[in-house]
Amino acid sequence: MHVVVNAAASADGKLSSRRREQIAISGEADFERVDRLRANSDAVVVGVGTVLADDPHLTVKDESLCNERLERGEPKQPARVVVDSKGRTPTDAAVLDDAAATYVCLSEAAPVDTRLELADRAELVTAGDERVDLLRAFAALESAGLKQIMVEGGGELIFSLFEAGLVDELRTFVGPKVIGGRDAPTLADGEGFVEAFPQLRLERLERLDEGALLCWTVEH
Amino acid sequence: MHVVVNAAASADGKLSSRRREQIAISGEADFERVDRLRANSDAVVVGVGTVLADDPHLTVKDESLCNERLERGEPKQPARVVVDSKGRTPTDAAVLDDAAATYVCLSEAAPVDTRLELADRAELVTAGDERVDLLRAFAALESAGLKQIMVEGGGELIFSLFEAGLVDELRTFVGPKVIGGRDAPTLADGEGFVEAFPQLRLERLERLDEGALLCWTVEH
Ligand SMILES: NC(=O)c1ccc[n+]([C@@H]2O[C@H](COP(=O)([O-])OP(=O)(O)OC[C@H]3O[C@@H](n4cnc5c(N)ncnc54)[C@H](OP(=O)(O)O)[C@@H]3O)[C@@H](O)[C@H]2O)c1
Ligand SMILES: NC(=O)c1ccc[n+]([C@@H]2O[C@H](COP(=O)([O-])OP(=O)(O)OC[C@H]3O[C@@H](n4cnc5c(N)ncnc54)[C@H](OP(=O)(O)O)[C@@H]3O)[C@@H](O)[C@H]2O)c1
Repeated sequence: MHVVVNAAASADGKLSSRRREQIAISGEADFERVDRLRANSDAVVVGVGTVLADDPHLTVKDESLCNERLERGEPKQPARVVVDSKGRTPTDAAVLDDAAATYVCLSEAAPVDTRLELADRAELVTAGDERVDLLRAFAALESAGLKQIMVEGGGELIFSLFEAGLVDELRTFVGPKVIGGRDAPTLADGEGFVEAFPQLRLERLERLDEGALLCWTVEH
Repeated sequence: MHVVVNAAASADGKLSSRRREQIAISGEADFERVDRLRANSDAVVVGVGTVLADDPHLTVKDESLCNERLERGEPKQPARVVVDSKGRTPTDAAVLDDAAATYVCLSEAAPVDTRLELADRAELVTAGDERVDLLRAFAALESAGLKQIMVEGGGELIFSLFEAGLVDELRTFVGPKVIGGRDAPTLADGEGFVEAFPQLRLERLERLDEGALLCWTVEH
């Protein structure tokens, strides 16, 4: 399994404002880069916080990229995965439509009727007691054939993935805005590290749109 | 007056860990860049949070840069400025030693005996009722001949400076570490913007040490 975390951050490291409203950080070229990255992935993963805040669809937008997937013998769209301990994903969420396969990773804490409702619309993976156990959940995804994984956020999920040692690459588009706010979501939230900080290696650095693309690999 | 904000951030936009302990983010080449930037400034500014957390000295370390300043007819060291509403700067803080001139910007809320103690060691500037009024304080610094200003943080002060429209340039070294933490200081904390986000223009992008240097100007 290979896990790439991709996100757009402001020049001060924020994913959105303190109101958790989506903010246009990147531009057309970055949009195309992200679409291509999705098209080269078996699954696109987000936390339920992102589903509740943005209701993203997480599909590949460019039809020709979808056709290339079909030619490679892959499903037209990569699978979508929501990490969602208690099954808070709304049944009318865009990620649950029939444009692509969807997996919802739950913990034992998800109520039975929530499970039943979600089971109509998604494959369910259960791992962990109170919170999703990411190591076990990702192992289950791998067993289901999902090897090339793209994670699109948010900051809570990204931190936990670094903590679990699951991240292989981090790609950040840094955009030409200051968002600010001690309560605004950042690229890696959670508890935070106080030692043994994950170490990165800068593999690529380039201008893109009005900002910069930084591609890091994680030293394991 | 020209104000340059300079800081080192982790790949996820943090200035330090949630424990507010200083973390080595940059390397030798960035250290030299920062020393040169200090040497080309009339004053180096920090918030009292940074004084309390790191007790920095804020002086130019390279003797030859100091000599160049003297040859230009400038003081050997740039002035140091602490933004400190209530006069919480400890009297034994490194910024109050006699290696350079120091200004402490207070508000009306600073107690009289604190003022008296600080007045022995620094020039006092008073502006604002509860908090330092940055527009007025910076105007006073300019009147004192401090035109080229470097701000070294932290995130609370940087946000307020953007809010006041006082920032001309932002230079960020982005280092090869993930710090994480929803409570860790970021490059711009404070309340945060929810609209009218300050817009930047990327002027320079280069590899430095094991990370990247991003130099932005602020669109006014
Ligand atoms: N700029 C970008 O590229 C970008 C991308 C994505 C998101 N965003 C922004 O990010 C914000 C949402 O991010 P977020 O950090 O609040 O939410 P998130 O990371 O999307 O989701 C976090 C939630 O996932 C669930 N979860 C389950 N198991 C977990 C585990 N082991 N570790 C961590 N989380 C686990 C938790 O809720 P339960 O306990 O209920 O399961 C947790 O609150 C929104 O404002 C959105 O706009 C921006
Ligand atoms: N990596 C780097 O380059 C770097 C650089 C600097 C700092 N740091 C880190 O940043 C952290 C400290 O940052 P911080 O954000 O807590 O503190 P800070 O920005 O250094 O100082 C903030 C304090 O300044 C005072 N202040 C007075 N007037 C203000 C105004 N108008 N706006 C904002 N603040 C005003 C406030 O205290 P009063 O109300 O008492 O006046 C406020 O709490 C430390 O962990 C330090 O290690 C890192």
